[in-house]
Amino acid sequence: MRVLGIDPGLTRCGFGVVDGTVGRSPGLVAVDVVRTDASSEVAQRLLRLEVAFEEWVVKYRPDVVAVERVFAQHNVQTVMGTAQAAGVAMLVAARHQLPVALHTPSEVKAAITGSGRADKAQVGAMVTRILRLDETPKPADAADALALAICHVWRGSAGDKISRATDQAAQLAARQRRAYALARRTLPTDLNSRGV
Amino acid sequence: MRVLGIDPGLTRCGFGVVDGTVGRSPGLVAVDVVRTDASSEVAQRLLRLEVAFEEWVVKYRPDVVAVERVFAQHNVQTVMGTAQAAGVAMLVAARHQLPVALHTPSEVKAAITGSGRADKAQVGAMVTRILRLDETPKPADAADALALAICHVWRGSAGDKISRATDQAAQLAARQRRAYALARRTLPTDLNSRGV
Repeated sequence: MRVLGIDPGLTRCGFGVVDGTVGRSPGLVAVDVVRTDASSEVAQRLLRLEVAFEEWVVKYRPDVVAVERVFAQHNVQTVMGTAQAAGVAMLVAARHQLPVALHTPSEVKAAITGSGRADKAQVGAMVTRILRLDETPKPADAADALALAICHVWRGSAGDKISRATDQAAQLAARQRRAYALARRTLPTDLNSRGV
Repeated sequence: MRVLGIDPGLTRCGFGVVDGTVGRSPGLVAVDVVRTDASSEVAQRLLRLEVAFEEWVVKYRPDVVAVERVFAQHNVQTVMGTAQAAGVAMLVAARHQLPVALHTPSEVKAAITGSGRADKAQVGAMVTRILRLDETPKPADAADALALAICHVWRGSAGDKISRATDQAAQLAARQRRAYALARRTLPTDLNSRGV
């Protein structure tokens, strides 16, 4: 399995390609960081990233694209650009009929270092060791992209299925809550007030 | 000037095209809402939207694309998808060398109704009146996309220049803050401790 890991970002976007299967040491195929000029307009920066995603997908022919799942909670100032860069990566993957896997930063850290709260240096050191590299890929976005790809190789398709099942369960629960809320609103008032 | 207004969203994305110039009543060209299936994967939903953006840009040949500026502060659960939908709209505009204008919801409301805190019904009613329509475009995302386009016509290129200058001033201020923070860190400790 060949995985293209993307550590999304407008200013620096990490790209890492790894070959591997569950139970064997993954190998480095390629790693780089694509930068876009902070003084350019966002639309132009996204276009620059799209071109790079296309190039990597065509050049390295990954079986799956693993993208870091972006949360709204942290880094409010940069999170919009990060989400948009991740969106463009997913779009390019979908265009090439490639499956997209999203992994949270703590899933990646846990898979690589054994701790969901490892720092960037620990992740970089473990990536270097796992891939038997002479030095840690720099900047951190490059190492993070490789960590994502390794994480995906190790979690494998089983991990995918679990994530998908979890997502589906969450969606189902939300649907049930909505249905229940609707049922409450449409119940006769006397029943409703008895908390039925 | 022909403006394509986009009210970005994964579940419902509003598209509105308006012809107009400053000082004259704008006219409706087209309006619609593109929906994507909430049970599909995000990558597939973004791809569906990209196809729709492409179709509209090719079919209506706008001079500019006006997209609602998405903030991280509100609707944390849906804001990632909204930001990504907006990102794909910007990407398609950039690919066609079309300028992208971002307007905040309060800028749009203020331009259309005179109040930055108008509700959706007021915006819909004013869009209906301004474009001399027989009924308010439904759902609200359709009316909001037209409101964005009208807002852009009325603010015109002067508004663009002001927004750009404001953005640049904010970037410059951020750069100065960083330079100052760096200077503080590299100052001799005795100077630094005196708060210089």
